[in-house]
Amino acid sequence: MTIKERLFSLRAQMSASAVDAYIIPGSDPHMSEYLAAHWKFRQWISGFTGSAGTVVVLAEKAGLWTDSRYFIQAEKELEGSGIELFRMGMPGVPTYQEWLVAELQEGAVVGIDGRNIAVEEARKLAKTFNDNNIRFDAGINFQDKVWEGRPPIPENEVFGLDVRYTGVSRTEKLEMVRKEMKKAGASHYVICALDEIAWLLNLRGSDVEYNPVFHSFMVVSSDTANLFINPHKVTSDLGNKLTTDGIKIYLYDDFYEFLRTIPEGSSVFIDPQKVNYAVISSLPHSVKLHEGPSIVTMLKGIKNPVEIKGMKNCHIRDGVAMVKFLYWLENNIGKTKITELSAAEKLQSFRKEQENYRGDSFNSISAYGANAALPHYSATKENDAELKPEGLYLIDSGGQYLDGTTDITRTVHLGKLTEEEKKDFTLVLKGHINLSQTVFPAGTRGVHLDIMARGAMWKKGINYGHGTGHGVGHMLNVHEGPQSIRQQDNGVEMKANMITSNEPGIYKEGRHGIRTENLILSVTHKETEFGTFFAFETITMCPVDTEAIDVSLLREDEKEWLNSYHKTVYKKLKDFLQPAEKEWLKKQTRPI
Amino acid sequence: MTIKERLFSLRAQMSASAVDAYIIPGSDPHMSEYLAAHWKFRQWISGFTGSAGTVVVLAEKAGLWTDSRYFIQAEKELEGSGIELFRMGMPGVPTYQEWLVAELQEGAVVGIDGRNIAVEEARKLAKTFNDNNIRFDAGINFQDKVWEGRPPIPENEVFGLDVRYTGVSRTEKLEMVRKEMKKAGASHYVICALDEIAWLLNLRGSDVEYNPVFHSFMVVSSDTANLFINPHKVTSDLGNKLTTDGIKIYLYDDFYEFLRTIPEGSSVFIDPQKVNYAVISSLPHSVKLHEGPSIVTMLKGIKNPVEIKGMKNCHIRDGVAMVKFLYWLENNIGKTKITELSAAEKLQSFRKEQENYRGDSFNSISAYGANAALPHYSATKENDAELKPEGLYLIDSGGQYLDGTTDITRTVHLGKLTEEEKKDFTLVLKGHINLSQTVFPAGTRGVHLDIMARGAMWKKGINYGHGTGHGVGHMLNVHEGPQSIRQQDNGVEMKANMITSNEPGIYKEGRHGIRTENLILSVTHKETEFGTFFAFETITMCPVDTEAIDVSLLREDEKEWLNSYHKTVYKKLKDFLQPAEKEWLKKQTRPI
Repeated sequence: MTIKERLFSLRAQMSASAVDAYIIPGSDPHMSEYLAAHWKFRQWISGFTGSAGTVVVLAEKAGLWTDSRYFIQAEKELEGSGIELFRMGMPGVPTYQEWLVAELQEGAVVGIDGRNIAVEEARKLAKTFNDNNIRFDAGINFQDKVWEGRPPIPENEVFGLDVRYTGVSRTEKLEMVRKEMKKAGASHYVICALDEIAWLLNLRGSDVEYNPVFHSFMVVSSDTANLFINPHKVTSDLGNKLTTDGIKIYLYDDFYEFLRTIPEGSSVFIDPQKVNYAVISSLPHSVKLHEGPSIVTMLKGIKNPVEIKGMKNCHIRDGVAMVKFLYWLENNIGKTKITELSAAEKLQSFRKEQENYRGDSFNSISAYGANAALPHYSATKENDAELKPEGLYLIDSGGQYLDGTTDITRTVHLGKLTEEEKKDFTLVLKGHINLSQTVFPAGTRGVHLDIMARGAMWKKGINYGHGTGHGVGHMLNVHEGPQSIRQQDNGVEMKANMITSNEPGIYKEGRHGIRTENLILSVTHKETEFGTFFAFETITMCPVDTEAIDVSLLREDEKEWLNSYHKTVYKKLKDFLQPAEKEWLKKQTRPI
Repeated sequence: MTIKERLFSLRAQMSASAVDAYIIPGSDPHMSEYLAAHWKFRQWISGFTGSAGTVVVLAEKAGLWTDSRYFIQAEKELEGSGIELFRMGMPGVPTYQEWLVAELQEGAVVGIDGRNIAVEEARKLAKTFNDNNIRFDAGINFQDKVWEGRPPIPENEVFGLDVRYTGVSRTEKLEMVRKEMKKAGASHYVICALDEIAWLLNLRGSDVEYNPVFHSFMVVSSDTANLFINPHKVTSDLGNKLTTDGIKIYLYDDFYEFLRTIPEGSSVFIDPQKVNYAVISSLPHSVKLHEGPSIVTMLKGIKNPVEIKGMKNCHIRDGVAMVKFLYWLENNIGKTKITELSAAEKLQSFRKEQENYRGDSFNSISAYGANAALPHYSATKENDAELKPEGLYLIDSGGQYLDGTTDITRTVHLGKLTEEEKKDFTLVLKGHINLSQTVFPAGTRGVHLDIMARGAMWKKGINYGHGTGHGVGHMLNVHEGPQSIRQQDNGVEMKANMITSNEPGIYKEGRHGIRTENLILSVTHKETEFGTFFAFETITMCPVDTEAIDVSLLREDEKEWLNSYHKTVYKKLKDFLQPAEKEWLKKQTRPI
C-alpha cells in the first residue's frame, strides 16, 4: 500500500465513524523512548521514520509536526504523500492543536487512541478542544482496522536479573512499593512504563533496541501483584518463580479489562505523565485517583549499594573499552581509513570484549568536525564522514552490562586545533568540573545546579541548547527520571545515591561540537548544624584529552580536580590494558 | 474592650449569621506589606501585633497561626486571650486549613471577608473546604460591625512625582499599559496594589510607613482610567492635572460598585496574587477573566533611563550617609554608649542630611553579635543591646529619596574577630561577589542564579534560610516584583534594567549573623551567536569591611572584583565627605 492508499483507508474509517480529525502521536501504550515496530503506526501511515512527530489527518488535509532535528529527513520522506510538513518551533508555524482549532468547525469531532498518549497530555488536548467547542474522543482505535501487515508485539524471552546484580529481591521491592502506596493512601498502583516493571520484578528483556525492557503492564494492590504479559515471553521456570513470589500473570491484552474490575471505591495511584489515557477511561468511575510522580521511578532513582557497586565496576570495564578505542584511534588516524560509522563499530567491538556486556545503551553519536555541532547528529551510510588528522572528533556512547549501564562522551583532537577549539574545549571542561565539584544541601533540585556547568561559558557569551544531566538506569534505560539537571524545574530533589550525567557542550554550526560527559553519583558529604550536604563522585573512568585544553584558562582548583580524576582513572584501569595502551594512558593522565 | 470581649462580640455576629468559623487574615484589600491601622483587624481582635499571622475563630475555640519570627512575641501577646498559638512549620502543627477541616462537621460554614485575601489564596481555601464538604463564604464582613473605635482610612495628601524623577509621564505609562492589555486581549484591567497605582500615575503618598503609597484602586479600560480614592487626599490642583490627563476620580468606597457596572462581555485582566477576592465576586458573571502577572508590575520592574540615573545618584548620597555612619561608629565605639537603636538613629540622622531624602525605606535591622543571627531581628526599647568593641555588628537599612530607593546591609567588626567570624564573613562575601560577577543569557530566571551566592558556603556545609535577592522599587516599595533570586522558581526572566538585591548571609544561633547586601542592576553585556547575555552592575556605594576578611580564602578574581568595586566607591563618594571621613574611606578602600 502506498501512503496515499493508507490515508484513504484511514479516511474511510473516519468518515464511517463521523470523526473529523484523527491525531496519531508517535508513542506506544508505555510512553516509551524507543518503539517496537508494532506501535510505529505514525510511521506506517506517513512514511516518516523520525523518533519524534505527530500526524494529524482531516478529510482533505493531513500534516506532520516534528522538530528541527528532522526537518530535512521529513521533507524527503513525506514527498508525494500529500502530508504537509509543519516545522515545530519555526516562526508562524502553528501547533497541531492551533491548526486543528483553526481548521475545524464548532461541534467537530477529534479522535485519538487514548492508549498512545499520556494522561497529562490527553487532558491538555481535551481542555483545548473543549474550550473551542470541539468534541474530543480518546477512544478511537483505527490502527487495528486499517494497518495491514502490522508487525506483532515482540515475543522475545524475558530473563531474570540475579539479586547479586539488583541487590534487592522483587518481593522486597514489592514491599517497598506497597509502603509508599500506603503513605499515599492508595489501594492500587497502575504501571505502564516498561523500565519501571523491569526494575520492580528484577526482569529484563530485549523487545526494543538499547532499552532492556519487555512489553507488559502491572497493577500492584495492597495484597496482589498482577503482571500483564504475552505468555510466550515467560519460560515455565521463570513463571514458577514469579508465582512463588506472589506475581499473578495475565495476558497482555487483558490489562484494560482487568482495570474495569478494580473494586468500586478503590484508590488508584497513577503517574499522569507515565500512564496512558486509556487507563483512566478504563477505571470504574467510583475509583479515586491519586496522582503523583511514579512510586517506582522515585525508588529506582536511588541506587542501592549493590547497584552502585555494579555501576562502578561496569564503568571500569567501559573505561577500558574507551581507552583501547582512543588509543587505537590516535594510532590509526591518518593511516587507515576511519569513518564516523567505522569508528563507532570499533568502539563497540572493544565493549563486546568486556565481561557482562549485553549491547549498547543507545545509538552512538560518532561525529567528526562540524557534524558534531548538531547535538543529536547520527551518521548514516549515506553521510558517513571520514575522520582526518585535524580538528575535533566527538563520540557519545554507552553500554548495557549485567551489572550496570554507561553513558560517556569524549571529544578528542585528531590533529592540530585552533585557538577557538581549545578555548571552547576548556570552557566545556570548566563547566564539567565546576558541576562535579559542587556541594549542595538537601532540598536542592537540578534547576539550581545547572548554572554550575554553564557559568564559565556564559561569561564568554556561549551557551548550549540541551539539558546538562539526566538520570541513568541500572542495566536499564540510559535516560530515566526522576532527577535531571536542567533549566526547567522538575520539582525533584537531588538525593544521595542518584546517578546523573554531567554533559555540558559547545556547538558552533559549521565549525565544531564539543561535549564532555561523565556520570556522577550523589553522595552524602557532611552533616552540619545547617543540615545534610551532598557532593558528587565521578564514576565514569576515562581520560579527558589534555592536549585539547588551554591550561591558562583553568583555575588552580580546576587543575587539581582534573589531576586527581586522572590519577584515579589510571589506577582503576591500568591493570586491564596491554602494555602499550597502559603507557598511552599514563601519558594521557599526567598532571597538567 | 478586652480581647475576650472583642471575641465575644465577633462570636455573637457569627452565631447570628450562622457562620461556624471565621478567618481573619493579616492583610488589607491591596495585599500590602505594611498595613494602615484601619486594616489591622487581626491585631484588634487578637492583640497580636506581628506582621504575619492569621486568626481563626470558632464558637468555642480560636487560634493564631504565625511563623518562627513571632513565636515568643505571640505567646506573650496572646496570654489570657483564650487564643491558642499554632507555631507554623513546627512538627505536628496543623495548618489552619487542616485544623478547620478537623474541627468542623460536614456542612459547616467558614466565612472570610473576601476583600482581605488574594484571589489565588481564596481559591485554594475554597477548594480545600469544598473537597471536605464545608461551605466557604468569602462575602462575610464582620469587622465593620464589631470593631469599635476603628481608625479611619488615612487621609494624607498625595503628591505628584515629577517626570524629571519618573522619566515617563502618566499618560505615556497609560499607553504602555493599554498596549499590554491589547496584547492580552483585555478591555479592562483592575489594579489593587498600591505601588502599582503610585507608579502608573506618578503619584506618591504617606499612608503607611516606609512605602510611599496611598490608598486607592484603579480600573483602566481601553479608553478610560478610573481612580478610586478618598477626595481629601487630592488637592484641587492635582485633581485638575489628573483630569487633564484623562483620569476620572471616584470615591474610594465606590470601587466595588463600579466593578458591577463593567459591561457584560468585557475581558478583565487581573493578577490573582495581587487582586483581592471581592473584586472577582463583584464583576458581572458574563465578564471573561484574563489572569497573569500584573501588567504594571512587569513594566515597573524594568527601570527607565531616568529612574536608573536617579537610583544611581541616590545611592551615592546613601553611600555618603553610610560612610559617615561607619566612620562615626569606628571612632566612637568603646568611647560613647552606643546601642542598637541609637546606632540606627544615628544612621538615620546622616540620611536625613542628604538631598531628596523622604524617610527610611524600611525599619532598620540594627543587630549586635548574636542578635544578628536572627535574620529579621528588630531591636526594641526593651531589648536594645549595647554595642561593645568586639565581634560583629550588622545594619540592614535603606532610604526613600525622590529619585530612588536604597537597601543596603553591612556587617562590620567592632573589635577583634574570631577565625570563624572571619571565615564566615569571607564566605558571605564570596557568594556576594560570585553573584555580582555572573553573566547570563536571556531567559535566565532567579532560580538559576541563586546558587552563585550560596555555592562557596555550601562547600563548607553552611546555608541561609532566606532568599538571595528581591526587586527594589524606584521611590517606592523596597520589596517589589516581578523578579527575585531565590530557590523557588517564580517563572520570571531576569531582564536588562531590573534592580535586584544581592544579600547572602550566614546566621549562627547564639554566635553571630553576617549579611552583605548591595543592589545590582541588570545590564546588557554582549550579543553573540548564542543570543543576548546580561551582567550585573553594582549601584550600592559603600565599602565592605576588609578587616573582617580572611584574604587567604579569596580567589584572585574575587580580590580583583572587590578592589575594583572599592576603587569606584572611593571615586564616587570622596567629594562629599569631610577630610577625616575621606581619609578613613581611602583606607577602607585600599586594595587587598
